[in-house]
Amino acid sequence: MLIVAIGGGTGLSTLLRGLKNFDVDIVAIVTVTDEGGSSGILRREYRIPPPGDVRNNIVALAEDESLIAKLLQYRFDGNGSLAGHSLGNLMLAALTKMLGSFPRAIEALSDILAIKGRVLPVTDEMVRLVAKKSNGEIVIGEEAISKREGKVEEIKLDKSASALDEVVENLKKADMIVVGPGSLYTSVIANFLIDGVGEAIRDNGRAVKIYVANIMTQPGETEGYTLYDHYKEVVKYSGVKFDAVLVNSQPPPQDVLERYRKEKADMVSIDFERFDIPVILEPMVTLVTDERDGKVKARHDPMKLAEAVLNFKGWKKQ
Amino acid sequence: MLIVAIGGGTGLSTLLRGLKNFDVDIVAIVTVTDEGGSSGILRREYRIPPPGDVRNNIVALAEDESLIAKLLQYRFDGNGSLAGHSLGNLMLAALTKMLGSFPRAIEALSDILAIKGRVLPVTDEMVRLVAKKSNGEIVIGEEAISKREGKVEEIKLDKSASALDEVVENLKKADMIVVGPGSLYTSVIANFLIDGVGEAIRDNGRAVKIYVANIMTQPGETEGYTLYDHYKEVVKYSGVKFDAVLVNSQPPPQDVLERYRKEKADMVSIDFERFDIPVILEPMVTLVTDERDGKVKARHDPMKLAEAVLNFKGWKKQ
Repeated sequence: MLIVAIGGGTGLSTLLRGLKNFDVDIVAIVTVTDEGGSSGILRREYRIPPPGDVRNNIVALAEDESLIAKLLQYRFDGNGSLAGHSLGNLMLAALTKMLGSFPRAIEALSDILAIKGRVLPVTDEMVRLVAKKSNGEIVIGEEAISKREGKVEEIKLDKSASALDEVVENLKKADMIVVGPGSLYTSVIANFLIDGVGEAIRDNGRAVKIYVANIMTQPGETEGYTLYDHYKEVVKYSGVKFDAVLVNSQPPPQDVLERYRKEKADMVSIDFERFDIPVILEPMVTLVTDERDGKVKARHDPMKLAEAVLNFKGWKKQ
Repeated sequence: MLIVAIGGGTGLSTLLRGLKNFDVDIVAIVTVTDEGGSSGILRREYRIPPPGDVRNNIVALAEDESLIAKLLQYRFDGNGSLAGHSLGNLMLAALTKMLGSFPRAIEALSDILAIKGRVLPVTDEMVRLVAKKSNGEIVIGEEAISKREGKVEEIKLDKSASALDEVVENLKKADMIVVGPGSLYTSVIANFLIDGVGEAIRDNGRAVKIYVANIMTQPGETEGYTLYDHYKEVVKYSGVKFDAVLVNSQPPPQDVLERYRKEKADMVSIDFERFDIPVILEPMVTLVTDERDGKVKARHDPMKLAEAVLNFKGWKKQ
């Protein structure tokens, strides 16, 4: 069974980390519009697609605890010229320059790590996100979009770009297509702004299509959004008719929730009565300390998420 | 048969590139006093031994043409924050920080590349070279020493440092010890400034000991040095009684020689009559374009050098 999962860095890698334990073929389709940190610097200085999200997903599909997977995630600290760069990003940058294309670099790094499954950038073109915020402001670039106040009212690319052929092929032959979890506009919908992605999913009438919602709302993107608000936006940009929505039902501990609320985030409220497709509620929360800011975050538990996804049509587990 | 080879970056890696084709165990002992380029930046910014020479020797012992070996040698260009860094140096820097020691980082990278043989830094202490030049000037640091005019009259370290235990152990159990080729003071003799190296070689009465001389003299280090001048300096700093000196007998093409002469370098003249040990002359020149400056250099041919070394006592080839 071929599962194609679409998203960005953190959310998608969580799903992959669970899925790789089951007897399924996995293709991960990853957005390339990240502009923050190490990825942003490499994008600007070396004119290559931002490697960070791809790197996270390659590592998620690698053998746990392998030294080379850890090496890819190593981030230089201090104030030197390398500060903030993760080594895996530098490897992808070097491979892109050596081999002449970002997709070939990803394939080479995937081979070196002998990962289970494939990671594909949604496109090999250099594009930027452009958002209209709820206050009317136009913001260019992924990092700025999530940092400026206000919900995203509309999002598009700075120019049109086409999906990689392999992306389209895999979406067309998938047995299951999983969209999310991940930052709604900058990680999930960003993929549907690329020509050919939504169409390929719509053309595949056979695949089961699931949208996995986020656990928490996200300031700068989805403040106050209910489950249906998320879903509606994904459908609006993708044109995809989903078979089900999967959402976490378990609140994070009170102290974590309080901290989120201080930062204008909250649990996604589940307005299931507005849906005309099945909504599957599963307790799937785990707490993870985010290495970038040291904060405890409510994330999907990889195994619970993967099991919930695979259980949808009663597929046999490994 | 265990061959232990001692040197620096380019010369030692040439020997290893040949030796790995034969059925011998190889340990390379590498100086850690490089301060130029990428190595120098990592040394200063991240307080780790300079990784460049070690990287060159790891790659020399890796499978030829393997993608990951090429990746290690990839050097970022342009004007970005990464310009001049080779990716292998960055990997060694990250592994050193992750694993807490430079020798463990080298071992880990060697495992990742599945190299034939071992590469050992002569010490894991941070030391600098200090030279007195023929004009009386005191120069600190490897890069400055080879760039300032004048021969090296005396060389020492800025502080004492001890050889790694594994270095001493391997020197004591070696069947053959090969010293050079490489920059006389900054690559070869630099190893004998570390406490325990010369002693371990002298203690091994059983090993065959060969000094491989350079093809060309080197401005800033050995201007006008004859073969015996080279040999005498190695003996002076190491206290080693060599069984033979191996030297190239074949002049490089006239145009290459002319270019060297314009840069104050020349073929090492072979004053064999001054030696009381065997001098072996073999034609071993090959021309290599140096990636760092684009110039055509006269270097040892890896296979001819390895064969000449292994033939010394009539050892059977693979």
